[in-house]
Amino acid sequence: MEYMFASPDCNAVEGLVIGINGTFPGPTIRAKAGDRVVVTVINKLHTEGVVIHWHGIQMRGTPWADGTASISQCAINPGETFVYNFTVDRPGTYFYHGHYGMQRSAGLYGSLIVDVKDGEKEPFNYEQDFNFLLSDWWHRSVHEQAVLLSGKPFHWIGEPQTLLINGTGQYDCTWKTELTDNTSLNHCETSKDGERFCKPLILHVKPNKVYRLRIASTTALASLNLAIEGHKMEVVEADGSYVEPFTVDNLDIHSGESYSVLLRTMGLPSNDYWISIGVIGRDPSNTFLGQAILTYFRPTHKPVQIPTTKPPQTPDWKDHNRSLEFAKKIVAKKNYNSPKPPKISDRRIILLNTQNYIDGFTKWAINNISLTLPPTPYLGAIKYGLNDAFDSKNKPPENYDPNYNISNPPLTDATFGNAVYDFEFNTTIDVILQNANVLNKINTSEIHPWHLHGHDFWVLGYGEGKFRDEDEENFNLENPPLKNTVVLFPNGWTALRFVADNPGVWAFHCHIEPHLHLGMGVIFAEGVDRIDENEIPKEALACGLTATLNLQTAARLNSGAHDFTPNHYLLYAIGFLLYLSFS
Amino acid sequence: MEYMFASPDCNAVEGLVIGINGTFPGPTIRAKAGDRVVVTVINKLHTEGVVIHWHGIQMRGTPWADGTASISQCAINPGETFVYNFTVDRPGTYFYHGHYGMQRSAGLYGSLIVDVKDGEKEPFNYEQDFNFLLSDWWHRSVHEQAVLLSGKPFHWIGEPQTLLINGTGQYDCTWKTELTDNTSLNHCETSKDGERFCKPLILHVKPNKVYRLRIASTTALASLNLAIEGHKMEVVEADGSYVEPFTVDNLDIHSGESYSVLLRTMGLPSNDYWISIGVIGRDPSNTFLGQAILTYFRPTHKPVQIPTTKPPQTPDWKDHNRSLEFAKKIVAKKNYNSPKPPKISDRRIILLNTQNYIDGFTKWAINNISLTLPPTPYLGAIKYGLNDAFDSKNKPPENYDPNYNISNPPLTDATFGNAVYDFEFNTTIDVILQNANVLNKINTSEIHPWHLHGHDFWVLGYGEGKFRDEDEENFNLENPPLKNTVVLFPNGWTALRFVADNPGVWAFHCHIEPHLHLGMGVIFAEGVDRIDENEIPKEALACGLTATLNLQTAARLNSGAHDFTPNHYLLYAIGFLLYLSFS
Repeated sequence: MEYMFASPDCNAVEGLVIGINGTFPGPTIRAKAGDRVVVTVINKLHTEGVVIHWHGIQMRGTPWADGTASISQCAINPGETFVYNFTVDRPGTYFYHGHYGMQRSAGLYGSLIVDVKDGEKEPFNYEQDFNFLLSDWWHRSVHEQAVLLSGKPFHWIGEPQTLLINGTGQYDCTWKTELTDNTSLNHCETSKDGERFCKPLILHVKPNKVYRLRIASTTALASLNLAIEGHKMEVVEADGSYVEPFTVDNLDIHSGESYSVLLRTMGLPSNDYWISIGVIGRDPSNTFLGQAILTYFRPTHKPVQIPTTKPPQTPDWKDHNRSLEFAKKIVAKKNYNSPKPPKISDRRIILLNTQNYIDGFTKWAINNISLTLPPTPYLGAIKYGLNDAFDSKNKPPENYDPNYNISNPPLTDATFGNAVYDFEFNTTIDVILQNANVLNKINTSEIHPWHLHGHDFWVLGYGEGKFRDEDEENFNLENPPLKNTVVLFPNGWTALRFVADNPGVWAFHCHIEPHLHLGMGVIFAEGVDRIDENEIPKEALACGLTATLNLQTAARLNSGAHDFTPNHYLLYAIGFLLYLSFS
Repeated sequence: MEYMFASPDCNAVEGLVIGINGTFPGPTIRAKAGDRVVVTVINKLHTEGVVIHWHGIQMRGTPWADGTASISQCAINPGETFVYNFTVDRPGTYFYHGHYGMQRSAGLYGSLIVDVKDGEKEPFNYEQDFNFLLSDWWHRSVHEQAVLLSGKPFHWIGEPQTLLINGTGQYDCTWKTELTDNTSLNHCETSKDGERFCKPLILHVKPNKVYRLRIASTTALASLNLAIEGHKMEVVEADGSYVEPFTVDNLDIHSGESYSVLLRTMGLPSNDYWISIGVIGRDPSNTFLGQAILTYFRPTHKPVQIPTTKPPQTPDWKDHNRSLEFAKKIVAKKNYNSPKPPKISDRRIILLNTQNYIDGFTKWAINNISLTLPPTPYLGAIKYGLNDAFDSKNKPPENYDPNYNISNPPLTDATFGNAVYDFEFNTTIDVILQNANVLNKINTSEIHPWHLHGHDFWVLGYGEGKFRDEDEENFNLENPPLKNTVVLFPNGWTALRFVADNPGVWAFHCHIEPHLHLGMGVIFAEGVDRIDENEIPKEALACGLTATLNLQTAARLNSGAHDFTPNHYLLYAIGFLLYLSFS
């Protein structure tokens, strides 16, 4: 991991991106289900720590490899090496990205594709797959962005300048000329890296075939809609699970989500076709569209043409109902052993999403608490009973004030906190995400894609306004989809269920990078006592209070004792005296 | 410590500086000799570690408080707090600054002034003292600077845009109007922070008085020359030691140095006067001068005028002989118990300074080795015998190839290294710094101010060309000055001597920030076995291999044993078995 200069969208001024092995985005990792993936991360940043989160991988048995700074591990220090070693148990379309500060926004991401095991088949066939890793790009450095957001007064970073497909976008471009061949494209203002960065993705397809498009979004902010001119798409996978296929003209994808769609090519294509990606859910402002070209193989080597047609228009960004209807179409695939949720849950927590002031700073808060991550990772702090490492005395609230008016800006300040939701192992948890009005603007509620680490969850339902107990009657327990990221729509609620059966400490947070940076997340701990401490790599906890464990604690760790009593002191003292008398 | 937006020189575009308690530069710390100084550092950067080095303070008894990342301590992680607790044993003009990556260049510095103990007197009198903390400023962020320097091919960051006095400079300014009162100044292009940042320092003095100017340079690159129009200066202190007073028209000061000068004010001032600071030693290119105004108190409240005269001209930057003559004037104060050097040294190390390629990267090297700091701090690694933490098998070379031609660019690549010079406790060490020609340019040798941590050293002499054994005959053993920073002039050598009587691990390096960043330093270890391990704050070593010390090592630390034998395992095993049988 190291900073490098780049202009992914051909803006005249290069900025810094975090590259991996000298490339941006990072290399695509392709594995087969059941594979053990071993990734050695070498931090070559000069003063910044780094971690890599493997988005969508459940890390069963390896919670220390989840790659969340302050949660599952210490940030890897400059000059240090850390080895991620984990199993990819399920096929699907995944990705990886930084999970420290705003390093994802700095370009620290790449694709992770897991194919089915040898000899196994997917429930659909296709000629070839194409990879679309979507992101958004600002010309201002993330270092400056982080300071703007953290300032008093708060300065919003604004909407992105461009949308990137596989790390390439086109800022302020005029499509001028034809594509002279398959590898070069004259367009836009050329820049020194123009050749490398600004050429749009060109998909070469044959007539009358089926192609799989793997589409994943690691945007910092933007919710997106993708459309292919003249073609429909059949959605077959969402967040690594097969879904009951459905056909759409265009596809919504929010930050943290992934989809596979099947594209059936025409028999008699008339032209080449635009693929365009635009912003939904927020006013796109001046953000430039992401664009790719679908081109049919030709019998003669005729150059690829810039389509003369108009690219598909992105639906109205404000039309949340359209997005909701899309979201509701996603259900578990029929007759496919799709796991079903337990019929009842053991515990329900309701999480109110609000934007708040705290001492004049603008923050996001959940049940009025804005998450501030502690320097010692929770995984180590909980495992080793380091009660001072975070607020271990309090439990975060399970609900919010029933009199809270979600249609108005909040009336009071939030507070900072870092307490943890503790789940008894194997219990079934319902989480209701409840949206509300933002600060300072009447009739405004923002969209938030929430992502859960360590789990898929069943999406049981969406609703408008405040969630009421009786809404549970309408939960979809028949064929809810399994996802790891789900949208909380403006002014509404989203219900999800999961089983706390994965020992570890897991973040659950809005996947919008600035929102998380401003506190929009919670921490779930489950079955931490079941984690074999000897399997936690020491390097994962080589910081903070876990790094300064004293002799007694170290001894306790080695002895395997789970509770430490004064007897231990006595016995180690005896050992020490014996040592003195023998030596 | 946190990033904030600032434009110290009123450039139209604000950049990031590292502020302390919301100010840039950091607050001046003022103490009395013998004081215990306790500074709590809270790292509020988002993803970057931080340390603070207390430049010129010898840290006797507290080597872990020297504030050098990878050497005396781990970088303090974001969200963490570290307490520096050390004694300032000698009065003098000092400063503090970041010592991790290029954070000093990012503005992480402030003044540290140590007054004499109550009841004690300095060997001179003065009405009042003024503080000049000098630095240089680039408009490009240090994050970008670091990437430019580390790239292949190498990109030089260029000379600074401006010179700052106490954090204020004037970029591309036209002095337009008068100073309407003592607190406001209309000049330059105004910017939103113009009021705050761009007003030059104004020194209000009375006629016929003596003032002390405390001048320290924490520039990233520039060597400076300071002159006060119409006034001479008497140099009385250098790097915290009194010197035999001498009078100059202008003062050279290199990065890492500090001076006190006495300014005798006129009886009948004709006007207000310029104080100007310019670049020497390197071609200043387009760097704007640093400027301040000396103004005499007036009987009526007449506004301060921009002097209509021309500011003093900085001497020719190429005139190294003039600078050398200045340097040679600095000798220990007569009849003042100035410590004298031992007559002979126990060991001599010659350090060749070269610019080299390594695998196509441009680096600086010492005896052909470019220093790459390891992630585990040397202090802990050596104390606890963690031999894998750095190259503990090799010793760095004590000399260079006698056939090396210092007048030509180097012919071969250098190598990376991080081995340590080990000094037997209380031995007397001579170091000869030997300059040489840079890469790619004939007849070019750069200036390097070298700074030693944990010590003052006696400057025994300077010479041209290659140092020869017989040059030792001309060493000044009578009244050599004590300094912590000394200049190595182009094409020459500089000889210094110190006694390795301060247990600790100490950096000795070129104080030019990009040069250190590119490997221009060495590590000295002395008497590490004499450090009381119980006094090293655990937090200082809470990273890398010191953070993953295992049970055995921890036990060994606690037992106070210095060598670990298999018996320990046996005895702790007995303790553990007793524990099992009792519990």
